[in-house]
Amino acid sequence: MNGPDILVSEVGPRDGLQNIDAVIPTDYKKRWIEAEARAGVREIEVGSFVPAKYMPQLADTGELVSFAHAIENLAVAVLVPNFRGAEAAVEAGVDNMSIPFSVSETHCQRNLNRSHEQMFTEIMRIVELLDGLPIDKRPHFEVGLSTAFGCSLEGKIADEKIIGIAEKVIMAGCDEVGLSDTTGSANPRQVRHLIKLVRSAVGEDKLTGVHLHNTRGLGLANALAALEEGITTLDSSLGGLGGCPAAPGASGNIVTEDLVFMLESMGLNTGVDIHRLLAVRGSLNEVIPIESLFGFTADAGLPRGY
Amino acid sequence: MNGPDILVSEVGPRDGLQNIDAVIPTDYKKRWIEAEARAGVREIEVGSFVPAKYMPQLADTGELVSFAHAIENLAVAVLVPNFRGAEAAVEAGVDNMSIPFSVSETHCQRNLNRSHEQMFTEIMRIVELLDGLPIDKRPHFEVGLSTAFGCSLEGKIADEKIIGIAEKVIMAGCDEVGLSDTTGSANPRQVRHLIKLVRSAVGEDKLTGVHLHNTRGLGLANALAALEEGITTLDSSLGGLGGCPAAPGASGNIVTEDLVFMLESMGLNTGVDIHRLLAVRGSLNEVIPIESLFGFTADAGLPRGY
Repeated sequence: MNGPDILVSEVGPRDGLQNIDAVIPTDYKKRWIEAEARAGVREIEVGSFVPAKYMPQLADTGELVSFAHAIENLAVAVLVPNFRGAEAAVEAGVDNMSIPFSVSETHCQRNLNRSHEQMFTEIMRIVELLDGLPIDKRPHFEVGLSTAFGCSLEGKIADEKIIGIAEKVIMAGCDEVGLSDTTGSANPRQVRHLIKLVRSAVGEDKLTGVHLHNTRGLGLANALAALEEGITTLDSSLGGLGGCPAAPGASGNIVTEDLVFMLESMGLNTGVDIHRLLAVRGSLNEVIPIESLFGFTADAGLPRGY
Repeated sequence: MNGPDILVSEVGPRDGLQNIDAVIPTDYKKRWIEAEARAGVREIEVGSFVPAKYMPQLADTGELVSFAHAIENLAVAVLVPNFRGAEAAVEAGVDNMSIPFSVSETHCQRNLNRSHEQMFTEIMRIVELLDGLPIDKRPHFEVGLSTAFGCSLEGKIADEKIIGIAEKVIMAGCDEVGLSDTTGSANPRQVRHLIKLVRSAVGEDKLTGVHLHNTRGLGLANALAALEEGITTLDSSLGGLGGCPAAPGASGNIVTEDLVFMLESMGLNTGVDIHRLLAVRGSLNEVIPIESLFGFTADAGLPRGY
């Protein structure tokens, strides 16, 4: 089986559910993960290794990793906020883990309660942990540069600062950096600019994915700009669930269904069967009120001749 | 005063209101048109010269044209379905008029009750009418190629057919053709392809505008692709009002507020003050229920540092 042209990385079970007060039953999450994987989604962020007292919604992440690990052709991703989370992720046997590093220090402090210096220290400890593992146990480790396109507290962050952080974490031994539009402030021109800039600093193979939001409706336009710059992994969330709780006014991931429709219409193979994907969305309202779901393709249906 | 880089052409008073059963009072429409022009919008499609028995919502088009004509820096546009409508438009003194020509003959027949041959005859009669006018009374006349990106009845229409129609109407003396994604089926790759193709057939200056829908959430991504192909006029509708009544499943124009936010964020001048534009949107709910409005920027607000 050939890999897809573009990897659509589903973040709903983590990013979507961490923004919902209700605790969704683990069995339901398993059905969701399995159904989406069967629809052809090749990477799913199933949870986050955060203390259960902060996010009881994600307390079952370990169990979900084990479950998802058994599904064929699925890379199991998690978010980790710190070294402790990374330890838990390694123990659970994840394929990919990412740590959010807000390039806005104010946001970093508020979201993860750490300064940039403390973040670098934490990341170096994680790399050390990974370096001690046998190669087949070592997960791919990415640093997600949050608020890269602007912060709701600090505004736009200087290019030099972003590049400096990217260079430093790659030098420290992280596998990759990602760019996250945490506050949904990005525009297509800025997306192209920042991807070019960071890639020229750390190398093309060290920036292959972006995490964009649809806060102001520009999610797919920004995704298009990223694609045209050579990005091959796009994060999105079924029904557009999720956002960032620590960034006021920020909400709305890119909608997986609409993204897959765009990519497949453009002739780019995602490996995803959109009919099955739409069926999974349809079943989301067993646990999530339909009025909380975003996206247009589900209502409009597919065009004639698609 | 310099012209804007990109002309945002507001179609809400025509395309939006023709899709609403309620007849909006003429005075309200005037306030809307005036407020949007004051926000810096330079072109507004104020109505359509169709028989009042078919569209009572637009029966006041003549009065709106006179009203809008008196507003400085505003091009007054209307839609005309046929020769009779064109006569009325000329008499009212419009700046721009466009006639929809569905490249899908089935849709053409259903929407305007005419075959392609009958459409060509109608268009030639209109050109003859225009050619008899003094130059300062002659409105700009565009043929909008509807269903150019796919038809909900016929599916995708062959490139050759679209080019053939474009060439024929330009040869007949129309000023310009436009491309309309009536059914919201377009994808960015197709947008680029079709713009290139039609421009190479009829000349760049004969295709400067597109009318895109957001039916499946791709409106702004398609607009970005069009921009990058050199398109300088983008149709949109305040609050995303409107769509196409004769194409089942088709709804949702590009949202003017989100479009302006995208363009201005990219450093492209639209001449529009987005704060004032958002205020006009806010006042729409005097007559239109807020749940009928689309768009994200109004709810999210502008990013810090915008």
